[in-house]
Amino acid sequence: MHTETIYFEDYALDASRTTVGRTITETDFVVHAGHTGDFFPHHLDAEFCKTLPFGQRIAHGTMVFSIGIGLTASIINPVAFSYGYDKLRFIRPVFIGDTIKTRVTISDKYPDPKREGMGQVIERCEVINQKDETVLAADHILLVEMKESQG
Amino acid sequence: MHTETIYFEDYALDASRTTVGRTITETDFVVHAGHTGDFFPHHLDAEFCKTLPFGQRIAHGTMVFSIGIGLTASIINPVAFSYGYDKLRFIRPVFIGDTIKTRVTISDKYPDPKREGMGQVIERCEVINQKDETVLAADHILLVEMKESQG
Amino acid sequence: MHTETIYFEDYALDASRTTVGRTITETDFVVHAGHTGDFFPHHLDAEFCKTLPFGQRIAHGTMVFSIGIGLTASIINPVAFSYGYDKLRFIRPVFIGDTIKTRVTISDKYPDPKREGMGQVIERCEVINQKDETVLAADHILLVEMKESQG
Amino acid sequence: MHTETIYFEDYALDASRTTVGRTITETDFVVHAGHTGDFFPHHLDAEFCKTLPFGQRIAHGTMVFSIGIGLTASIINPVAFSYGYDKLRFIRPVFIGDTIKTRVTISDKYPDPKREGMGQVIERCEVINQKDETVLAADHILLVEMKESQG
Amino acid sequence: MHTETIYFEDYALDASRTTVGRTITETDFVVHAGHTGDFFPHHLDAEFCKTLPFGQRIAHGTMVFSIGIGLTASIINPVAFSYGYDKLRFIRPVFIGDTIKTRVTISDKYPDPKREGMGQVIERCEVINQKDETVLAADHILLVEMKESQG
Amino acid sequence: MHTETIYFEDYALDASRTTVGRTITETDFVVHAGHTGDFFPHHLDAEFCKTLPFGQRIAHGTMVFSIGIGLTASIINPVAFSYGYDKLRFIRPVFIGDTIKTRVTISDKYPDPKREGMGQVIERCEVINQKDETVLAADHILLVEMKESQG
Repeated sequence: MHTETIYFEDYALDASRTTVGRTITETDFVVHAGHTGDFFPHHLDAEFCKTLPFGQRIAHGTMVFSIGIGLTASIINPVAFSYGYDKLRFIRPVFIGDTIKTRVTISDKYPDPKREGMGQVIERCEVINQKDETVLAADHILLVEMKESQG
Repeated sequence: MHTETIYFEDYALDASRTTVGRTITETDFVVHAGHTGDFFPHHLDAEFCKTLPFGQRIAHGTMVFSIGIGLTASIINPVAFSYGYDKLRFIRPVFIGDTIKTRVTISDKYPDPKREGMGQVIERCEVINQKDETVLAADHILLVEMKESQG
Repeated sequence: MHTETIYFEDYALDASRTTVGRTITETDFVVHAGHTGDFFPHHLDAEFCKTLPFGQRIAHGTMVFSIGIGLTASIINPVAFSYGYDKLRFIRPVFIGDTIKTRVTISDKYPDPKREGMGQVIERCEVINQKDETVLAADHILLVEMKESQG
Repeated sequence: MHTETIYFEDYALDASRTTVGRTITETDFVVHAGHTGDFFPHHLDAEFCKTLPFGQRIAHGTMVFSIGIGLTASIINPVAFSYGYDKLRFIRPVFIGDTIKTRVTISDKYPDPKREGMGQVIERCEVINQKDETVLAADHILLVEMKESQG
Repeated sequence: MHTETIYFEDYALDASRTTVGRTITETDFVVHAGHTGDFFPHHLDAEFCKTLPFGQRIAHGTMVFSIGIGLTASIINPVAFSYGYDKLRFIRPVFIGDTIKTRVTISDKYPDPKREGMGQVIERCEVINQKDETVLAADHILLVEMKESQG
Repeated sequence: MHTETIYFEDYALDASRTTVGRTITETDFVVHAGHTGDFFPHHLDAEFCKTLPFGQRIAHGTMVFSIGIGLTASIINPVAFSYGYDKLRFIRPVFIGDTIKTRVTISDKYPDPKREGMGQVIERCEVINQKDETVLAADHILLVEMKESQG
């Protein structure tokens, strides 16, 4: 983790990076249930899950999102602010023992329609498992200062 | 937590429910950092935060989302599936000691354009603090079976 | 979790409910040891346990109790108070990977001998594993307001 | 923690020991909720608790019990087995910041009526706060081998 | 855990004790990563580790040290203070499922060169796995009061 | 966190970097106790600590070490291996609410006496609090491949 100032103008369209991987463990399932209070049997009851199509416990969507985004947390950019996410989609289930990493691609950028001197940068986030399948996708909307606004 | 079968036709537009509350503690900040690997000083370094506009540590957006959604996890509907979220927005910061609850409103519903016998139900989720301010909002997209598809 | 006012008169003898299930994981063993400070090798040392009759790590009694009771925490009754438990018994061991649920039966009710306008309701709690064996039992004593006391 | 063989005959009536103390923190509240799934607002919602008689969050009964008993886990006695607890009572609330310790007194012992060569030893467990008030009490029933059974 | 006053003069050279054992679980790996913020893939990414010589995830050195030392925490000696450690060495990897215990040997003692009335006692700490291999070693330096200083 | 190959020859004597900061919370105290099993009252019993010179709970030495080192975990160097630590010293207490960061300085380097093609690089690690006081210091010994060994 380090600090690096990156202005709106500095973001290059289509630039892409992929994080290190992390194996999702049974521990993560239990920790996320306890952290959020979501103890749905789909995530925590192995016997119940044997009766479902996937046959095993599946990860909370909010966990795959939180850990997938957490994997990207490596550069502190003091001129960028997280505005939110669009098109967050749970595409495939994540099982205990799957290993995920996140690919971040600058998919769009444009001046912010309402905030002068600011732009919006879209980071397309794709969480990928060990079979190279996308399990979750979301568009992260960053509000970023423009250089000229510094003048 | 209990199981209740609710078909697409059964969701009533504008129906609304509000969860119990939960105080967000310093523990939750530390647990979320450890769970996701996001140790940004905005969330964990009280000295650094004194130099920022808010003057104190602010909650991870992914945590407010995960706990806010976790608060709603009370009814297991076997004919509904979580498809994803749209328009997830971080509206106001959440500080240590704030108490949040989530208001869920059925804001829209329509037949799924691609999946016959299924509909999409939009749950507008608003996470609200103890001052009745909305701190986070998101549209939850549920895929729900239609009754007629059961015939 | 929701709020529902249930007076002493409203509890029906022999009424019974069973909770959803939860698989007890190695994580729960480690979390409970760390939470309580009980690091006895019966719970945490797989090599030592190979030398014991059961041949494997067994769950802390206090954990089966705490999780078993936690599974029942779904209705907030503002006129009921937990007084304590009688006849808490550890009947069978719980192993890593077992799935438990709790059956709650109203086994007795009577006016409280000392508190006017209050009654005692006994919830017989049985924690059951995936083989339908009772692993733990306890009688929960609830102090509940009577309706007439509201007049 | 050490191992020490103590037979039924070796337990001295009225012998008493008191554990070290431990301050119950907000962290313990959050960990216990997450461990057990009991997110009742009495334990976790500071705003709700302002409307209750105690005016603040109170500890889960199962937590005071589990930590109070955990404090006593220091001697591994290979000829004793935990049978259960009687008369578990929640006597006073435990608040965030209270410091508890447990006093264990051998309050009774007698031959087991059904198991030859075994006795029952009652450990009276009292969890005490920093004001020397008893907050929880329970009678721990130990099954202990008799010496003569070793002959 | 109990309190016992042991003066410098009371430590016997070559005296040795071995703690109970503890199985190191995947949970411990995840907890330690979250506690320290060290999410290196050597500890958490099972796929990456398949490409390394050991072929599997290996424990953080700081975790083996912390748990190995934690196992020795059983006697509170009010006249001894932890000064630090020398020659901390990571000798063999610890894998998920290994069981460790710690052997503590008084390997040296001498008057403290700068603090009158104090001595230094060296506790040689060896963390040993289930195959009786030493996985970590360190020399713990204790500052201990001398009896004569009490005069 | 990113991967960067740095050979023995590339380490520059006296080069120094300082990590981001992290506030040590009561949660960290409780988590470390539970993770290691060290529940000494010096770390967990606020009442007991009022009777000690510092007057409040002090952090486990192994925690300050583990978190202090964890803060430095940002570059994966595939040609470096952690050999151990020398001169680990607990210099000042860390209290709840203190904020620490770690300064890493390359204080020495030399060819490894026994391993051809390898060198030892000493990273002087100093954990510093919000008052710029060093609370812990240790010399990290890295085994690093030499470039010529790659020929």
